[in-house]
Amino acid sequence: MTVRVGVIGAGWIGHEHIRRLTHTVTGARVTAVTDIDAARAEAAAAPFGARVLSDGAAVVASDDVDAVLVTSWGPTHAEHVLNAIAAGKPVFCEKPLATTAEDCLRIIEAETAHGRRLVQVGFMRRYDAGYRQMKQVIDSGRIGEPLIVHCAHRNPTVPQSYTSAMAALDTAVHEVDVLRWLLDDEIVSTQVVTPRATGKRFAHLKDPQIMLFETAKGVRIDLEVFVNCQYGYDIQCEAVGEEGLVRLPDPAAVGVRTSAQHTTEVLTDWVGRFRDAFDTEFREWIATLAAGDEPTGPSAWDGYAATVITAATVEALETGRVVATDLKPRPTLYGGTA
Amino acid sequence: MTVRVGVIGAGWIGHEHIRRLTHTVTGARVTAVTDIDAARAEAAAAPFGARVLSDGAAVVASDDVDAVLVTSWGPTHAEHVLNAIAAGKPVFCEKPLATTAEDCLRIIEAETAHGRRLVQVGFMRRYDAGYRQMKQVIDSGRIGEPLIVHCAHRNPTVPQSYTSAMAALDTAVHEVDVLRWLLDDEIVSTQVVTPRATGKRFAHLKDPQIMLFETAKGVRIDLEVFVNCQYGYDIQCEAVGEEGLVRLPDPAAVGVRTSAQHTTEVLTDWVGRFRDAFDTEFREWIATLAAGDEPTGPSAWDGYAATVITAATVEALETGRVVATDLKPRPTLYGGTA
Amino acid sequence: MTVRVGVIGAGWIGHEHIRRLTHTVTGARVTAVTDIDAARAEAAAAPFGARVLSDGAAVVASDDVDAVLVTSWGPTHAEHVLNAIAAGKPVFCEKPLATTAEDCLRIIEAETAHGRRLVQVGFMRRYDAGYRQMKQVIDSGRIGEPLIVHCAHRNPTVPQSYTSAMAALDTAVHEVDVLRWLLDDEIVSTQVVTPRATGKRFAHLKDPQIMLFETAKGVRIDLEVFVNCQYGYDIQCEAVGEEGLVRLPDPAAVGVRTSAQHTTEVLTDWVGRFRDAFDTEFREWIATLAAGDEPTGPSAWDGYAATVITAATVEALETGRVVATDLKPRPTLYGGTA
Amino acid sequence: MTVRVGVIGAGWIGHEHIRRLTHTVTGARVTAVTDIDAARAEAAAAPFGARVLSDGAAVVASDDVDAVLVTSWGPTHAEHVLNAIAAGKPVFCEKPLATTAEDCLRIIEAETAHGRRLVQVGFMRRYDAGYRQMKQVIDSGRIGEPLIVHCAHRNPTVPQSYTSAMAALDTAVHEVDVLRWLLDDEIVSTQVVTPRATGKRFAHLKDPQIMLFETAKGVRIDLEVFVNCQYGYDIQCEAVGEEGLVRLPDPAAVGVRTSAQHTTEVLTDWVGRFRDAFDTEFREWIATLAAGDEPTGPSAWDGYAATVITAATVEALETGRVVATDLKPRPTLYGGTA
Repeated sequence: MTVRVGVIGAGWIGHEHIRRLTHTVTGARVTAVTDIDAARAEAAAAPFGARVLSDGAAVVASDDVDAVLVTSWGPTHAEHVLNAIAAGKPVFCEKPLATTAEDCLRIIEAETAHGRRLVQVGFMRRYDAGYRQMKQVIDSGRIGEPLIVHCAHRNPTVPQSYTSAMAALDTAVHEVDVLRWLLDDEIVSTQVVTPRATGKRFAHLKDPQIMLFETAKGVRIDLEVFVNCQYGYDIQCEAVGEEGLVRLPDPAAVGVRTSAQHTTEVLTDWVGRFRDAFDTEFREWIATLAAGDEPTGPSAWDGYAATVITAATVEALETGRVVATDLKPRPTLYGGTA
Repeated sequence: MTVRVGVIGAGWIGHEHIRRLTHTVTGARVTAVTDIDAARAEAAAAPFGARVLSDGAAVVASDDVDAVLVTSWGPTHAEHVLNAIAAGKPVFCEKPLATTAEDCLRIIEAETAHGRRLVQVGFMRRYDAGYRQMKQVIDSGRIGEPLIVHCAHRNPTVPQSYTSAMAALDTAVHEVDVLRWLLDDEIVSTQVVTPRATGKRFAHLKDPQIMLFETAKGVRIDLEVFVNCQYGYDIQCEAVGEEGLVRLPDPAAVGVRTSAQHTTEVLTDWVGRFRDAFDTEFREWIATLAAGDEPTGPSAWDGYAATVITAATVEALETGRVVATDLKPRPTLYGGTA
Repeated sequence: MTVRVGVIGAGWIGHEHIRRLTHTVTGARVTAVTDIDAARAEAAAAPFGARVLSDGAAVVASDDVDAVLVTSWGPTHAEHVLNAIAAGKPVFCEKPLATTAEDCLRIIEAETAHGRRLVQVGFMRRYDAGYRQMKQVIDSGRIGEPLIVHCAHRNPTVPQSYTSAMAALDTAVHEVDVLRWLLDDEIVSTQVVTPRATGKRFAHLKDPQIMLFETAKGVRIDLEVFVNCQYGYDIQCEAVGEEGLVRLPDPAAVGVRTSAQHTTEVLTDWVGRFRDAFDTEFREWIATLAAGDEPTGPSAWDGYAATVITAATVEALETGRVVATDLKPRPTLYGGTA
Repeated sequence: MTVRVGVIGAGWIGHEHIRRLTHTVTGARVTAVTDIDAARAEAAAAPFGARVLSDGAAVVASDDVDAVLVTSWGPTHAEHVLNAIAAGKPVFCEKPLATTAEDCLRIIEAETAHGRRLVQVGFMRRYDAGYRQMKQVIDSGRIGEPLIVHCAHRNPTVPQSYTSAMAALDTAVHEVDVLRWLLDDEIVSTQVVTPRATGKRFAHLKDPQIMLFETAKGVRIDLEVFVNCQYGYDIQCEAVGEEGLVRLPDPAAVGVRTSAQHTTEVLTDWVGRFRDAFDTEFREWIATLAAGDEPTGPSAWDGYAATVITAATVEALETGRVVATDLKPRPTLYGGTA
């Protein structure tokens, strides 16, 4: 059975996922596309044989759409996801689930009322082979109980439109999700330390930042976010436990020896770094839907937690204080007791 | 357009490729399967909605078969490939193309008469990301002209049915192909040196073996084949040039520190090591066919060269002599001048 | 010319340095030894042909002592160092220079009055080949201005006598010194974050701790101190600058592949990790004295800074607050302007 | 007790060892120096307070010489070593022990007649930390019985005076010794394969060469000697056994990430690569002599074996044939039964 997907939002990432669902993932077909820019929708739809529809509601309502993919502008996510839930259709929403905690909670309420998971949020790192190996090691008990995680998230450069708040909202949000999953734990407080800013950034920007998270179990996480590091796109993660540690590998790359140097390439964009993770993410999502099962990836609850924690981190940055995340109790639909 | 594939041979690798063409590669569908064991054919065909046909000729002739995949017992390959050429259908043949040089030459003759490439041989290493990076580095000139290549091909263990000749025919054959491609060069002589045999093998077996190849340009290759190395499945390759060297990376794996050791996992089977390469190999093959192009992967000529060179290596093992490979002139269809 | 050294304190480290000055470093000879335990002094002196003297003052005063090595109990350091300065004799004092800021300042005052450096403090990391390579890279400008340093200092276990304050005073003190030197910068504030404590420590101990330092130039340092990490003695340091980063190497160790694992040994004690650094430290100290030059290693000022910064870190641990280090102005003898 | 050393030959390496014995190794003093160039002898002796003597015989005979160091031109080694044996004085002879097998045998005969080891040959690799770790692993049985060793010995460039024969006599001789020691085995045959020569060498030179050795136990060794590899001084060694492998580490070096590359430095000269090994070599030699013990390093027998095996390798290069080494039976003084 082929899963027919309707796509809301045909920007770069939407286009990329349409291509992925068509050419890389089996068992799926994009049947409908919409975008606020009709020409862009047409350009994304036509090469893949999909129809262009007038708006998100039309995509959700369409008979030939089994599942919805939301890749529109962040502030519009909540509306489309709520529409999909109302229609009882599975929906994959690129991060963020919603830009406010309130909207996330409305989604959770709707999904809880529906009684079954429909929503998956696009945090692709859980599908990266290295993180999955890390989780296996942690879950195996080989390193004992986790106590500390050291992380770094570095981009070569960012455009002028990138703001200091985006370091949490757009960049650290990936670590927030993957660490909650890796540790099977919740982040309860957040703090931001600002080193001397690099000279190689637009003047308005606080870059780098060091974010300090504390979890419910008392694990401490330090995360360097450095989005103008110049040298490459580099993701580091090391979990230290009571009996040992486990470290995310660098991507495999040939070693070259020339001119008195041993050199391996460092990637320069996230697309190459997480291409396989994106592929696996969609492959597993489609397989789950094809089997008629609930999605197993990041849930609406995970989307809510990420929104709350990153917003608290922005507050921590702006106030210089330690900020508690004060998450609501977790409903049973998401493995909680509320 | 979906490429409809007919599969001849439903053993382990055939089954694996049927699964791959169905679930991993887009744009393909397995429509027909045959095997000398009808029950095995049925078991491979049914879950994927393919029909079982009586024999290879029926598969080749079937109207709903656009392209043929030959994964039967090696000695039968030539017949199926020749049938496919006669029918003017693209054919992917798992290695070896044929078990004798004569049969390979008959295929080359038939394909040459057809005037267009139809045949691709299943040497998957050319699709491995590490080897592709090596080729980029070599082709870029960064290490200068290649002079020496050091290789190792190690398996943890082999079954009793594995013979000393298979070290060349079944194992080293992969290096033979990938090195010819990496170096864009031809192997002109071969020699085998036999170290003391490991105690951890069936008594009839010469294991490990060191194969020494010389290319037309004078590059020397040493290849350790060690199929009972116990510790893992490990592929090493280092090309040394006039100005530097390039080395195949180990697969990325998390580092773990416990008990006074830093440890990374070594794989234990080739399936995991080359899974991505197999996927890419079939993805590119199907894409080429869907576009109506000639296959770009290992050609019948490459299959012929591999068969001749590995046969010469068996002779070298048995006689203790340096054996010339004496390949025929390369036809223009394969980039030669004959 | 042989430098004749008198040693005050014949405990483990004193004994080790006597052996080092006798057997590893050329140009030195230990002529006099004292210890509060006379038998221990005798045991340390006799095999090396040194005399046992009654107390530190006698060692400093002795005609056959050109230079003094202080390896006694920390609280006694200041007295011996002041004696040596009063006698105009070079003195190498194991860390700490003194246990209080006041005593450190008395030493600085005395040395400043003397007008020439006599004191060197035993921070051996500046002599480690890896840290020296890091400093070369930083000083070369290859990574641009430093912005962040990530460090870890891990010991397998500590005895029951180890206290939470010692994490700063005895353990982190090495990073405090080496980072001030690496960055050519001063630490102006300190903070401690305490993750969930490992179960594998004596109950009174806060372990691990994460120390956060800020420098005068705005560099932020995070230092994990984990003294019951079980798995090994492991020192990590990574400096991130505006254009790149530099990372301390792990000690070279053979790679072993067995049983599906690639393994390298992790050291389990600091003696092995820094043996070469200790040798170089004393070799350079003796060479400097033999040449009649002032010592070039860590100064009394560095000893003062380390004492103040680590004391502030203990206060930060105990209060949970960010603590300013409030160092006095640096006298010109130590490159300052006061 | 200080060991008083007389040095025969004050070229670069002699000068270096005089400096080492004076400044790096404790318990030794250079008292006498000779050289065919009297000015060079004076320049080497004066800064270290040693006397210049007229010739090697005078050094050996001198009352203030306890032990002799031979660092003269290779063809003169045998005469000086024989003189030292005749005088009953310990002698450290830089490689080669002698340039002909006959001269080596005369030394063995003399030392055997003396009844006690006096001679140590300067193969410093046995003192390298990495090789020592390799030997520990091999001797521990962790990798099982060794079967194959892969080696590479690369220099950036060599001067015009370097000949094709020197690849064996001066370069591979170090692997010949260290492999005999690592494996506790004897090399019984040798063969040379010559890849296409690099364009970056003087025209008369066969470079690189691949040497293939076979040991008495059947271990096969392949050794790439490439003395104009351009990129660095690089020593590789990997021993493959029945259950695993062990690999020599690269020297520890900081990792630097800049400009989309992770880089570690590759050394460019052997002096830096083996400085610590040289220091340890002389430290252990002097300690042995100071204790009145026989030297424990490479023996006259090892020197004989190295000379025979490298001469056979030159013959193999020149004839293209496999050449047996045909060593004499090993006398009991050297652990043999003859």
